[in-house]
Amino acid sequence: MEMAVEETKSLTQPITMKGGDGPLSYARNSSFQKGVVDATKGMIIQAIANKLDMEKLCTDSYKTFQIADFGCSIGPNTFFSMQNIIEAVEQRHHADHGNSATTLEFQVFFNDHLSNDFNTLFQALPPSRPYFAAGVPGSFYGRLFPTSSIHIGHSSSALQWLSKVPEEVVDSSSPAWNKGSIYCTGTEKEVAKAFSGQFENDVETFLNARAEELVGGGLMVILMGGVPDGISLSQTSIGKFYDFFGSCLVDLTKKGLISEEKANSFNLPLYFPSAKELKTLIERNGRFSIESMDEIVEQVKSAHALPNTQNHISHIRAGTEGLIKLHLGTEIVEDFFECYAKKHVETRFVFAENGADNTLIFMILKRK
Amino acid sequence: MEMAVEETKSLTQPITMKGGDGPLSYARNSSFQKGVVDATKGMIIQAIANKLDMEKLCTDSYKTFQIADFGCSIGPNTFFSMQNIIEAVEQRHHADHGNSATTLEFQVFFNDHLSNDFNTLFQALPPSRPYFAAGVPGSFYGRLFPTSSIHIGHSSSALQWLSKVPEEVVDSSSPAWNKGSIYCTGTEKEVAKAFSGQFENDVETFLNARAEELVGGGLMVILMGGVPDGISLSQTSIGKFYDFFGSCLVDLTKKGLISEEKANSFNLPLYFPSAKELKTLIERNGRFSIESMDEIVEQVKSAHALPNTQNHISHIRAGTEGLIKLHLGTEIVEDFFECYAKKHVETRFVFAENGADNTLIFMILKRK
Repeated sequence: MEMAVEETKSLTQPITMKGGDGPLSYARNSSFQKGVVDATKGMIIQAIANKLDMEKLCTDSYKTFQIADFGCSIGPNTFFSMQNIIEAVEQRHHADHGNSATTLEFQVFFNDHLSNDFNTLFQALPPSRPYFAAGVPGSFYGRLFPTSSIHIGHSSSALQWLSKVPEEVVDSSSPAWNKGSIYCTGTEKEVAKAFSGQFENDVETFLNARAEELVGGGLMVILMGGVPDGISLSQTSIGKFYDFFGSCLVDLTKKGLISEEKANSFNLPLYFPSAKELKTLIERNGRFSIESMDEIVEQVKSAHALPNTQNHISHIRAGTEGLIKLHLGTEIVEDFFECYAKKHVETRFVFAENGADNTLIFMILKRK
Repeated sequence: MEMAVEETKSLTQPITMKGGDGPLSYARNSSFQKGVVDATKGMIIQAIANKLDMEKLCTDSYKTFQIADFGCSIGPNTFFSMQNIIEAVEQRHHADHGNSATTLEFQVFFNDHLSNDFNTLFQALPPSRPYFAAGVPGSFYGRLFPTSSIHIGHSSSALQWLSKVPEEVVDSSSPAWNKGSIYCTGTEKEVAKAFSGQFENDVETFLNARAEELVGGGLMVILMGGVPDGISLSQTSIGKFYDFFGSCLVDLTKKGLISEEKANSFNLPLYFPSAKELKTLIERNGRFSIESMDEIVEQVKSAHALPNTQNHISHIRAGTEGLIKLHLGTEIVEDFFECYAKKHVETRFVFAENGADNTLIFMILKRK
């Protein structure tokens, strides 16, 4: 189920994944992300083996290697990703120096929004981890680390979350008003322009902040949701899912449980670019070279089947409950998911059969 | 009220200050600590002005200055302390370089036990702070940071908390069994030996870990609870308070609410050294020079009066509820503090009039 990957990952809005480790929590409903982590492991190892300039990065007399995960959520996927990166760096280090290699020390910074449940993240840290751990609260659309202090940055399924919903799309007097939809379908020109404009600004802000924080030659590993070139989001499985999700809001409006105004002002702060679009933005920014850029489809598709509705709901809920609460109020959450569950059974909605493939864009950038 | 200082500060046992910001929370009941922070501000500024070798510490082309607070709890006092240190470093930096001084960047690491409420700490971070913030979970009786990565370490009212209660003191077959007392009174020779032995080990472990983590010439600012030389803890106000606290356990035993066995096995993992004793341990360790060592009495004593019983209970509860829960169970907490409050009113117990002064030991150590 493609949409799951985007639905349950880190937010940069003050909306976060469901914390704790109860049955509805993100920690127990993030197995799709684990599939993505596994799928990209080989690519990360290869990138670090080929692209990392160890001599340049470790010039200090003591050898500390600093890694940051931007949009880490509460685990456990961030732990797998960090472990993979560390293994890759160590392999590379030993390939360079053989048995005479000094022991590297790793410090890993786990970043996510201030409202992320860092207590749960910390409790879940692997007890015998090969790194010193630290949590860093704050939006990654801004500076988080001292200048030239990070050797490898990582961000998985996070950058498609915008810093905010563009104001025009919830303004009924604007030509970009996104009436009747909760996301950027890609078919309404003015709406799409507002969302893509926000995305451009956010990517620029992200790259500028990371360019300051990464050491020269440092790598930035990015995995994020996208669409194939020439395909609009509404044509894809994720788009179909958001249509379905939005229709539940309409149902609640009809029942008088939420106002039409509230339903109309609910928009997801999300933008799924094409690889081509993203490439243009990175080149325009100019502070990173693109070492590799791949689109992943298969690994996501293979994870589409969910055993039953209850599991599906738990999964969707882990990722979207925060949004519902923030925009529509805590009191509506149970009604919403009850409506969602009923409709899901009734319509026998099967996401993956319903739209074009989405993509995950996997990039290795190097700080110039 | 002297004991308050020790009662409500960070623990290195898996027991922590009451989180959140409700009326019983540590964050709202830590004003005594704020007095201590203010009292030591001048001493910290002076120490940094006179003892910090800036040239040696900031040799990198970029100037990042890294500070760690060991046992930070959930704020706000840690924020005041970090702010004071940063101001002092900047004063020193500008005194050295005048207007040509480069801008320093600061990164502050907030450390406390894994069970500390880091979410509350992060939410309370000053929004316009002059540093990059990170949280580091874990016991400071062990490594927390990469080698030579910290320029100034700080620890306030935390090091009197041992890593654990010595096993002998709760073992009824041992000559060091501490029957009928909940703390190291200092009057029972075998008990005192067990506690001081644990303290020696813990200080050694702490200093060795910090020696690895601090850069050469880096400073360690330590403030901790102590006793005047030749005075046993049971003679002091803190001792009198623990006697009172322990007598409430006896009351609950008599009422049949807790077993005698449980009451007997309740011991506080605390040790208050004399300055002389601590000096010996630091010199024996040998990895730090003692730049200054002071005993503070007055500043603590001036904070002894509490407006009323309810405030007093809130204050004591913020610091000890975790201990009660851990050792005696959540179900006993309300009973305990009800008993405590009643007895407190009945006996008109006034702590500060009841014993000898305690001291706070304030030290500046320099990494050799």
